[in-house]
Amino acid sequence: MLKLYSFGPGANSLKPMLALYEKGSEFEQVLLNPAKFEHHSDWFKKINPRGQVPALEDRGKIITESTVICEYLEDEHPTDVKLRPGNSYDTAQMRVWTKWVDEYFCWCVSTIGWHRMVSKMVQDLTDEQFEAKLKDIPVYEQQVKWRRAREGFPQDLLDEEMRKIGYSVRRLDDHLADHEWLAGGVYSLADICNFAIANGMQHGFSELVNTSDTPHLVRWIEQINERPAVKKMFASVPHELRKDD
Amino acid sequence: MLKLYSFGPGANSLKPMLALYEKGSEFEQVLLNPAKFEHHSDWFKKINPRGQVPALEDRGKIITESTVICEYLEDEHPTDVKLRPGNSYDTAQMRVWTKWVDEYFCWCVSTIGWHRMVSKMVQDLTDEQFEAKLKDIPVYEQQVKWRRAREGFPQDLLDEEMRKIGYSVRRLDDHLADHEWLAGGVYSLADICNFAIANGMQHGFSELVNTSDTPHLVRWIEQINERPAVKKMFASVPHELRKDD
Repeated sequence: MLKLYSFGPGANSLKPMLALYEKGSEFEQVLLNPAKFEHHSDWFKKINPRGQVPALEDRGKIITESTVICEYLEDEHPTDVKLRPGNSYDTAQMRVWTKWVDEYFCWCVSTIGWHRMVSKMVQDLTDEQFEAKLKDIPVYEQQVKWRRAREGFPQDLLDEEMRKIGYSVRRLDDHLADHEWLAGGVYSLADICNFAIANGMQHGFSELVNTSDTPHLVRWIEQINERPAVKKMFASVPHELRKDD
Repeated sequence: MLKLYSFGPGANSLKPMLALYEKGSEFEQVLLNPAKFEHHSDWFKKINPRGQVPALEDRGKIITESTVICEYLEDEHPTDVKLRPGNSYDTAQMRVWTKWVDEYFCWCVSTIGWHRMVSKMVQDLTDEQFEAKLKDIPVYEQQVKWRRAREGFPQDLLDEEMRKIGYSVRRLDDHLADHEWLAGGVYSLADICNFAIANGMQHGFSELVNTSDTPHLVRWIEQINERPAVKKMFASVPHELRKDD
């Protein structure tokens, strides 16, 4: 059976998880606890040497990178539910949107998320404990990000990331003003991958995402939250394990 | 007929161009001159509002983003030459590599390229001329990059980009040490998209890419240069138009 390693239905982990729920595919759920740094543990680095979730196991083979996993599921495990549009042109538009999430939208939101959450996660550690944790992180840029989160991100970086978030949500809102879905007139991986980052911003970034400034984006977020597969996923899986879980 | 707008066979423009040559697909070649800022001209921004090459025109529709165009060509214009591996797992590995070029490898190489070339391209302009050019650039981050190229990139940024380039070429070399091609044992879009960035580094970055430090990478670059489609492409299309072309 398929096995999905993830942090739960948020951010990049949400993408393949929601794809699996939408497709109605059976899979084994393996939740890692980020507060316990489980993704940097030796057992998980045997699965993904980069120490990152999500990762999918399929008959002994491991597929990594959230967007790549989503396309893999469509290629290898097709069901009646199609998460790519029906023609090549619309599929290309879908890929422009999934690429944009991965290269732009997710990064600015992620920095602010780290500023708010990861910084707190590591503040109880002594310097020695923190340095020991860093040694387990295989990707150099991730080490730098953890260090910055502990020291505090520079204000000019935070300001720039907030500018990018503002630009991103306006871009989504503009497009959704006259499109029900992001690509090809159908609910697709473009929506799933953007929803993974945008969902919850109506609370966490309410100064930017709200019914006055980005009504179409809010409509789309609510519309996706009403889907049976989404409701089932959120009802079945904890959003993210905490330190004492 | 297909029409490809590009700067010629280098960097991102090379990706779909080489894919078309490998596939043996007929297409109309439209070369834009970067030294004349043709990609920021009104006529081209009607084709791609982001003012970026490459862009593909197919029966009146425009497809943008080099990697997306490559996958589109495989989806919509299949020929006997397959540029994706024959199974889903290997295709996923191919996508991990094309994603890595787009998110990591191309950016560090690009900054050093801009430092060496674009900086010279804009130094003859007066401040007024330069500011007028900037106004034509639709993507804010690109405006910032042009401004930095003119002012000079900070040395710590250049050092960090060189560190990333060193890491990147070692990563490619390690993988190519025991793999003829990057994904699935066949020449694929993974090779084409990485070659687009790596080709020429044995000259421009010879302190990092050479037969002592990265023998497998050099072998792979040379092997691709020996392919009939690659030879034909380089013989037929100028690498990049210059100011007086």
